[in-house]
Amino acid sequence: MTSVKWRGFASTTRLEEATRIFMEKARFEPEPEVIPVEEAHRRKLVEDVSSPLDLPGFRRSAMDGYAVVASDTHGASDTSPKTLRLVGSSDIGETIVKSISEGECMKILTGAPVPEGADAVVKVEDTDQLEEGFIEVYSPVVSGRNVAEKDEDVKQGTLIFKAGRILSLMDISLLISMGITEVNVYRRPRVAVVSTGNELVPASQKLGIGQVYDSNRPAIALWAKCLGAKVVTSTSCEDDPDTIMDTLARIIPHTDFIITTGGTSVGTKDYMEEVVSVMGEIWVHGISIRPGKPVILGKIREGNSEVPILALPGYPLAAFLNFENFGQEILARWTGFRNPRSYTDVILNQTIPSNPGIRDFVRLKKCGESEDGTPIVDLIRITGAGILSSLVLADYLLEVPEDVEGYPKGSTVKVRVLDYTRL
Amino acid sequence: MTSVKWRGFASTTRLEEATRIFMEKARFEPEPEVIPVEEAHRRKLVEDVSSPLDLPGFRRSAMDGYAVVASDTHGASDTSPKTLRLVGSSDIGETIVKSISEGECMKILTGAPVPEGADAVVKVEDTDQLEEGFIEVYSPVVSGRNVAEKDEDVKQGTLIFKAGRILSLMDISLLISMGITEVNVYRRPRVAVVSTGNELVPASQKLGIGQVYDSNRPAIALWAKCLGAKVVTSTSCEDDPDTIMDTLARIIPHTDFIITTGGTSVGTKDYMEEVVSVMGEIWVHGISIRPGKPVILGKIREGNSEVPILALPGYPLAAFLNFENFGQEILARWTGFRNPRSYTDVILNQTIPSNPGIRDFVRLKKCGESEDGTPIVDLIRITGAGILSSLVLADYLLEVPEDVEGYPKGSTVKVRVLDYTRL
Repeated sequence: MTSVKWRGFASTTRLEEATRIFMEKARFEPEPEVIPVEEAHRRKLVEDVSSPLDLPGFRRSAMDGYAVVASDTHGASDTSPKTLRLVGSSDIGETIVKSISEGECMKILTGAPVPEGADAVVKVEDTDQLEEGFIEVYSPVVSGRNVAEKDEDVKQGTLIFKAGRILSLMDISLLISMGITEVNVYRRPRVAVVSTGNELVPASQKLGIGQVYDSNRPAIALWAKCLGAKVVTSTSCEDDPDTIMDTLARIIPHTDFIITTGGTSVGTKDYMEEVVSVMGEIWVHGISIRPGKPVILGKIREGNSEVPILALPGYPLAAFLNFENFGQEILARWTGFRNPRSYTDVILNQTIPSNPGIRDFVRLKKCGESEDGTPIVDLIRITGAGILSSLVLADYLLEVPEDVEGYPKGSTVKVRVLDYTRL
Repeated sequence: MTSVKWRGFASTTRLEEATRIFMEKARFEPEPEVIPVEEAHRRKLVEDVSSPLDLPGFRRSAMDGYAVVASDTHGASDTSPKTLRLVGSSDIGETIVKSISEGECMKILTGAPVPEGADAVVKVEDTDQLEEGFIEVYSPVVSGRNVAEKDEDVKQGTLIFKAGRILSLMDISLLISMGITEVNVYRRPRVAVVSTGNELVPASQKLGIGQVYDSNRPAIALWAKCLGAKVVTSTSCEDDPDTIMDTLARIIPHTDFIITTGGTSVGTKDYMEEVVSVMGEIWVHGISIRPGKPVILGKIREGNSEVPILALPGYPLAAFLNFENFGQEILARWTGFRNPRSYTDVILNQTIPSNPGIRDFVRLKKCGESEDGTPIVDLIRITGAGILSSLVLADYLLEVPEDVEGYPKGSTVKVRVLDYTRL
């Protein structure tokens, strides 16, 4: 009667090795799609983009003042101003180019087209307007002064962005300024999130004995979305291998990455190992970390479609920690986003014990600050993977390596910053 | 004939002073709104939230194994195991609580309800199942071992989050795990973006002489959205004071913050000073920074509604820099998001000249790295507010204070990191 499921993990994989395997084997080869440029923030360019035109496209004044023939101003000074005849004005948005001759000038606004014949703009501060249609210039300008050439900003045909660039909102602004309305980008990774477990009930329902609210799934789905994924499915299903396999089979053809929660341990109702084995291939089952050991990395197949699967444990802290380790990292690679994980130094206010051979993840809370501003931290709780509140209340996460038996009180250690408002 | 508009800026305000004025005077007093908890990522709580129930709500096993009466296992060892009668199993999702008596045990999965009578769980690794409905226990457990109490995670009535907390996705998960489906949060700031200028044409149209594509507006709108604002209006209007005032008057009652671009300088077509004066009050016009001097901070009124206005210059670089200085900071304060601005040290590969009395913003590009990994940077361009591409291509922005006359080649300086994919 002793099932294989009751043997426990015969061996576990180190985190680095599991990460290496997953990053190497999990594939994403998205097709390009053409989308409106306004929607392309944080999307990855398929092709080089060159400017279809010169920018600004016309000679433009860089100052409010008067467009002049520069040589007319030579020798001008406060005591010996040069007088020029005012022959009109060039406004912003003018669609015809006017012209001036020697001895003439034209009132001009910053950004307005410089008239033909003019080769410089005198700042308004260096002039006085006389009543009779003339102005006085008190300071000379050299040719080209305060005039932006027609290709000053961007020259037609200039390579603007290389293929593979992650477009920012500034990039979008530059593309629009060149009249580009659509861009060819890689589509976003399509993610499905499936929670498994007979104990799960939706938050709208009253909780019975033995039941828990299905709270991992919406958070993982939201997290994946913040990381640039398109969440195509977010659903829940019963702890039954056939039901799970049916659910996954329907999802596979329309997705690039499946994340499940629950059923990854070695109890009788932990079907995910069986499901992944039957539907595809297990790369890793069991990682030498605590909490979070029972995670499965692999791929599953349906027809011609094959997708990587990250089967997370059902306990919230274990699920989130493994999603952070694997899901966040793979999505960052696929989208080109930077992984939002960040680190800082803290000082331990307590001794942190840890068993060798396993990597402990310890939740810490800020309780003070040293003289130089380094946070001083207390331990929240060493064990208890179900304790979601300990993660929510934690400010930092300390990773204690396999070969370290804890840290003494007063040590300065490097920790992950937990700020999930910042994704 | 010399209009006031042609006098230039009589005086300009220092950046810190302008910031102080704007942050002090620009008000946002949002009403609360009740929204589904799944949509509450990065939203600010109006009230304290306490747990409506105990979590997990039932005594739960923290291990796969056997629920036992702890005293039955005392003295158990490999050589002298204790034998217990197996009377059933407790599964995850069971909605009735079973019970055992002394001398009995029950197979139990991690997360399943612990039967009445049992006060500990023996790990499966420390047992062997015998064929005849009995198990052997090889290791003693103390009372409470591997059993999570019904309020271990959260006790009913416990204060979970204080009013004012910015909810993260982990917080949302915790709220859902307590059966909370809706939360009372402050509504998001409603932002309107209006570009002004006769020269502006939509990107779908062919560009004529003197025309430019309306590229600031979509980027500012997207930026505001990334900062947690709700963009209620994004529109463009002609350079005409009446048209601008009509447009703004229609927008004011439905918005909390208006951002315009264009028309802020001192040329004849720069109507924003007039518009803001007529419709409300100018707090600041002209800041001693370069680029970006001609910005207007103030408020405008329509009926009983009064909203702060940030009137940005039309030149992209000047517009973006001022939005970063004022718009980003005020929205961060209003939403409670952290201002995404970040700094790093770089080494200058060139001398940076700067005039005293003005704060120069200098775009820099990484061209190498020092031995310790500090970026080495080149200057992109000192002047030219219209040069959007210099901002897009820049990696860093150096702020040269008013009292500094530039920096020599080789200096290490602190710079803003420009990464607009990271908002």
